[in-house]
Amino acid sequence: MTIRQVNTGNLFEDFHLGQKFNHGVPRTLTQADASIYLSLTGQRFALNCSQVLSKECGFKAIPIDNLLVFHIAFGKTVTDISLHAIANLGYAEVKFETPVFAGDTIEVTSEVIGLKQNSNGQSGIVYVHSLATNQAQQTVVSWIRWVMVPTRIKKFFDPKSAIKKIPHYQNSLHAEQLIIPTKTDFAAWRASVSDYQFTINDLNIGDELFHQDGITINAADHMQATHLYQNNARVHFNRHQMQQTNHQTPLVYGGHVISLCRAISYNGLANTIWLVAINSGEHTAPTYADDTIYCYSTILDKQPIEHRHDVGLIRIALTGYKNLLVQPQQINATDSLETLIPNSQIVLKLDYWALMII
Amino acid sequence: MTIRQVNTGNLFEDFHLGQKFNHGVPRTLTQADASIYLSLTGQRFALNCSQVLSKECGFKAIPIDNLLVFHIAFGKTVTDISLHAIANLGYAEVKFETPVFAGDTIEVTSEVIGLKQNSNGQSGIVYVHSLATNQAQQTVVSWIRWVMVPTRIKKFFDPKSAIKKIPHYQNSLHAEQLIIPTKTDFAAWRASVSDYQFTINDLNIGDELFHQDGITINAADHMQATHLYQNNARVHFNRHQMQQTNHQTPLVYGGHVISLCRAISYNGLANTIWLVAINSGEHTAPTYADDTIYCYSTILDKQPIEHRHDVGLIRIALTGYKNLLVQPQQINATDSLETLIPNSQIVLKLDYWALMII
Amino acid sequence: MTIRQVNTGNLFEDFHLGQKFNHGVPRTLTQADASIYLSLTGQRFALNCSQVLSKECGFKAIPIDNLLVFHIAFGKTVTDISLHAIANLGYAEVKFETPVFAGDTIEVTSEVIGLKQNSNGQSGIVYVHSLATNQAQQTVVSWIRWVMVPTRIKKFFDPKSAIKKIPHYQNSLHAEQLIIPTKTDFAAWRASVSDYQFTINDLNIGDELFHQDGITINAADHMQATHLYQNNARVHFNRHQMQQTNHQTPLVYGGHVISLCRAISYNGLANTIWLVAINSGEHTAPTYADDTIYCYSTILDKQPIEHRHDVGLIRIALTGYKNLLVQPQQINATDSLETLIPNSQIVLKLDYWALMII
Repeated sequence: MTIRQVNTGNLFEDFHLGQKFNHGVPRTLTQADASIYLSLTGQRFALNCSQVLSKECGFKAIPIDNLLVFHIAFGKTVTDISLHAIANLGYAEVKFETPVFAGDTIEVTSEVIGLKQNSNGQSGIVYVHSLATNQAQQTVVSWIRWVMVPTRIKKFFDPKSAIKKIPHYQNSLHAEQLIIPTKTDFAAWRASVSDYQFTINDLNIGDELFHQDGITINAADHMQATHLYQNNARVHFNRHQMQQTNHQTPLVYGGHVISLCRAISYNGLANTIWLVAINSGEHTAPTYADDTIYCYSTILDKQPIEHRHDVGLIRIALTGYKNLLVQPQQINATDSLETLIPNSQIVLKLDYWALMII
Repeated sequence: MTIRQVNTGNLFEDFHLGQKFNHGVPRTLTQADASIYLSLTGQRFALNCSQVLSKECGFKAIPIDNLLVFHIAFGKTVTDISLHAIANLGYAEVKFETPVFAGDTIEVTSEVIGLKQNSNGQSGIVYVHSLATNQAQQTVVSWIRWVMVPTRIKKFFDPKSAIKKIPHYQNSLHAEQLIIPTKTDFAAWRASVSDYQFTINDLNIGDELFHQDGITINAADHMQATHLYQNNARVHFNRHQMQQTNHQTPLVYGGHVISLCRAISYNGLANTIWLVAINSGEHTAPTYADDTIYCYSTILDKQPIEHRHDVGLIRIALTGYKNLLVQPQQINATDSLETLIPNSQIVLKLDYWALMII
Repeated sequence: MTIRQVNTGNLFEDFHLGQKFNHGVPRTLTQADASIYLSLTGQRFALNCSQVLSKECGFKAIPIDNLLVFHIAFGKTVTDISLHAIANLGYAEVKFETPVFAGDTIEVTSEVIGLKQNSNGQSGIVYVHSLATNQAQQTVVSWIRWVMVPTRIKKFFDPKSAIKKIPHYQNSLHAEQLIIPTKTDFAAWRASVSDYQFTINDLNIGDELFHQDGITINAADHMQATHLYQNNARVHFNRHQMQQTNHQTPLVYGGHVISLCRAISYNGLANTIWLVAINSGEHTAPTYADDTIYCYSTILDKQPIEHRHDVGLIRIALTGYKNLLVQPQQINATDSLETLIPNSQIVLKLDYWALMII
């Protein structure tokens, strides 16, 4: 008999600058994906829940939550880019360009835009620019990310000859680079649909919002979510194998933590109705099943949109942390939530732009 | 920096008689919601499963299970009414008025119809009448419920001046108050679609049915269900916080226990095809993840419907209990299932009206 | 009061040759069922994921995964055939005849085609031929299965008079008996959609493929899947009752293990795009929650299809095992994966035919 080795993903030596990938498994997104996402995250943003409301605002149907679109698009890149990743180091310039509706089919491509050998000779960093397009060849979402990937053979590291091409990326997209969904108009938005919460005029740069709720992640929750995203990274599904690592249990896909924090942030930010871009994202510590996720937000910037009196742009730092109960009296006694959350409990730092009701 | 306090729900002092709420997060129900509900409860009632059958019976499509509609409608009231509830004390006059189909969008309003201070000065009871309407402004379901809510400030309780306005509600709706879905005709119902089970003529007032199956609730099951219902009460999702309470673990949303018992009652009551009203519901003890739910039914009443030879009305008491194996020989040796189930194991007492095939 | 006994399924004495069953709960399959299935199994076969691709290949829409169709059809037979089954002994001649699309409604009938008393007098084997049809009365899938069912009364076993009618069934369907979906054409299949994996020409009879990934089954995963299939066999849902058996915990529905192995086999067999038939299936050991499932495949046969240059038929033995980490160096040092997996770890032996891209 012959044992045929199955394609097992790429190691550092397998990547070169300018290399392009057409990732597998094209996917038609459905209203069912949106409902499952809702049941796995507790998402409540009204625009993604009501067909009546989304049509009133100029959409042809309920738009699929941009984070769900991102996770599914991202999942497609795993086989080629990060099946063996030691760490997902960061994202940048995640830009949502075209709304996705149930029935749209997305495909994803990536290009290697940076490579850097690590001095230990055992790993390197791969930077890719990825692009998800719909069946009409419109770009749905594009992003840069970089991952640490092991080398096949341990190499002597010579700083003079080492591969080092770090691409340029922006720390934050500028307001004028952001894409507002066309033909939308939120003038008819009623305060009641988002529980009479803050509008953009209620918030100032520097304000902090404590989002109150915590959500405990069950093993089934994060595995089902990550399967829904068709993200097949091995570290998420195999408890048997992970028991033999330092983690001792599967890692929760970092994108799912982003979704939980975004869902929790409905308490206070219910009027941030549309995710426009992610400037940067960092999973500062691993999350495991049975962890309880909490979060707070800091307002980083506000920008008007020309000719729009219904919505503005708001830039928010979303900080996710775990397994720490902050008491109301602690909040009342401090000037900044930052002082209440030790770094060791923080699992997520996300910097994003959203459309927010005026 | 300024910490902006997020709206954190209402305490007893925040309510007044006649107060009205337009609850947030309008929701378009979908076939996906129905499938997820099915996978979380094991629901098998044929009318909610087959488009061919539902059309044969006069519906334009598969109707969404009335309990799923109720849970989603109920969930919308939590932020305003019961975010801080100490206990959900009861429901009454839950009346299903218009079938809901995939694509319908519901919104929910409530009015405070009763208030009662408790003598401990630390809590009071709030009675609300809630109403879910669809996009055509038809009432889908309406109900009364009452919850115990803490006071903001502990008050000296003076029985003479204490707030005490208890609304009138019926212990059971009368048959003539019930609404039968219009244009339906179940004459073509084949015995096979509901596994050749009892018709209304097979059952007599006082009969008891033991529903055989038990279902163990996993933590992920009840949290996913409660997220599907967008019920954001904190007691259901946060294991970390609940460990510091007497419960030590999250509470299962009582409505989910109703759904499990209803699903189990398919064994014997497969021909109770349409939930018409809930007369009263009481969660007599908390349910937690890893509990196993069993149930039995008692026939309370039967009423014919004028001009209908296909279906009649049946009133049923559904008793849910947990973690108790009743042996066939025990059932054979008793005159009443009631004697076999200690009160301490009972978690649900539900009194409802259903349409049942003749 | 009168306790009405609910229909509790059939015991060996209740079956006779030629007996026919019209099983309950007709079911309209939906895109939501497919999405839930995907989130519970990690399925990635492209034909079932992309509407664009499935239409390019000649389907009118995304076909529902044949295994999901089978599980739902199979589930309908449980109440009548296997509610009290001691063991599901095997399947044969599972033939997929008509693709199922979202919106199709299936009903299932069975006929008893064999009966055999066991010498212990306490059980017997029931053989049934089952048939799922859609709303146009087309056969969707048909199969033979046999289950061990307890007798009501222990009987003295006399080999001369014992019931023994074992039906004829084929160990494997012949290629010419298999049904290829009509009007399909996979000529436009791009290698990228299935991650540039093996085509049928890359594989030879006798080849073995190790599928790399393991998936840990959570309690909620398998119960939700089995509820989705509306399979109400009691051994799957009731931890409380199962604790009192030798198993100590619920059994995972064997069909769900098939689905997990099929999903994992995407790594290597991404181009086996259509399940045509299952020749035989055997659950050689029980699977429980928290088990981690792995699998490998052995190529048993390849057959061309007349006038088709786009796809051929491939016969594959899929072996599922659990809780065993096979190291790359072990694979490199052996001639056969069979030698690396002790029989005691094997949970599934499945022999099937698939369409595979040329």
